[in-house]
Amino acid sequence: MHPIDKYIRTIPDFPEEGIMFRDITTVTQDPEGFKLAVDSMQDLIKDLDYDVMVGVEARGFIFGAAIAYNMGKGLSLIRKKGKLPHTTISQEYDLEYGTATVEMHVDAIKPGQKVVIIDDLIATGGSAKAAIDLVEKLGAEVVDCLFLVELKGLNGRAKLDGYRVDSVIAYEGK
Amino acid sequence: MHPIDKYIRTIPDFPEEGIMFRDITTVTQDPEGFKLAVDSMQDLIKDLDYDVMVGVEARGFIFGAAIAYNMGKGLSLIRKKGKLPHTTISQEYDLEYGTATVEMHVDAIKPGQKVVIIDDLIATGGSAKAAIDLVEKLGAEVVDCLFLVELKGLNGRAKLDGYRVDSVIAYEGK
Repeated sequence: MHPIDKYIRTIPDFPEEGIMFRDITTVTQDPEGFKLAVDSMQDLIKDLDYDVMVGVEARGFIFGAAIAYNMGKGLSLIRKKGKLPHTTISQEYDLEYGTATVEMHVDAIKPGQKVVIIDDLIATGGSAKAAIDLVEKLGAEVVDCLFLVELKGLNGRAKLDGYRVDSVIAYEGK
Repeated sequence: MHPIDKYIRTIPDFPEEGIMFRDITTVTQDPEGFKLAVDSMQDLIKDLDYDVMVGVEARGFIFGAAIAYNMGKGLSLIRKKGKLPHTTISQEYDLEYGTATVEMHVDAIKPGQKVVIIDDLIATGGSAKAAIDLVEKLGAEVVDCLFLVELKGLNGRAKLDGYRVDSVIAYEGK
């Protein structure tokens, strides 16, 4: 098990019964945990050629910002519907019950740019696939989807088939 | 005018007529802009003694994460209601129409810790005051409220009277 495990708090039955919620606030609020998380994610992409990080609201902003700054890159934002003030494109995706919509500014990335999508956690892969769709609609290329935590039991990688996916720690189950 | 000005996009009449929205996505997505913003904010607190940064969802996470990582601190989170999985305390505050509620995990910070609250922008100061209230309810001490942008016409500093407030760039008007 990766040493980041000891900083992650598992909360049973949140937000609903049967879910083991992986709480990363205990990672970010601990100086050693936060440094370990950022350094470990960064290490996974150290040989990658990319232009910009795309962070998924809200926890993706945390890791995306630290790594983008360290690597001298920009951080472009994917936000929930209605939060971005300029012209946007949007992408809907399925939740267990219902749908959600994420948006990106039309000028958040440029055609041809190489993009690393970053979020704290991959579960079913629905929001990550929506992020890929947004990036590709803008004519850019996804070179990696980077996560701190992966929930293997939900098989998010299958939804991202054909794309590189990296995670620091993977848990069985969901 | 601080050189960060040229990276900030102003969008008239968003989210409603008469508001000049200061869009910082054009700062974060530009490598030079992002570096300038983070370095400038960091410089404002370089002589401060503090233990932890407290980032306000969602854009506060961006600047908070980069600075916390650089300074070897943790980043504790203030989130909108219902997002945090563990036991929380909450604080309501007034919006122009209606109210909003923000929350913090009970163990996000420890009694006696010195805290820097960070967000992208101070407008009326309502959310910053709610952040101060949360930090103080947990027995910690606010040593600074740090922002990239300040809208002077909304006089947020008055609401934070008695606290140190730092911003990189201040605009007249609202």
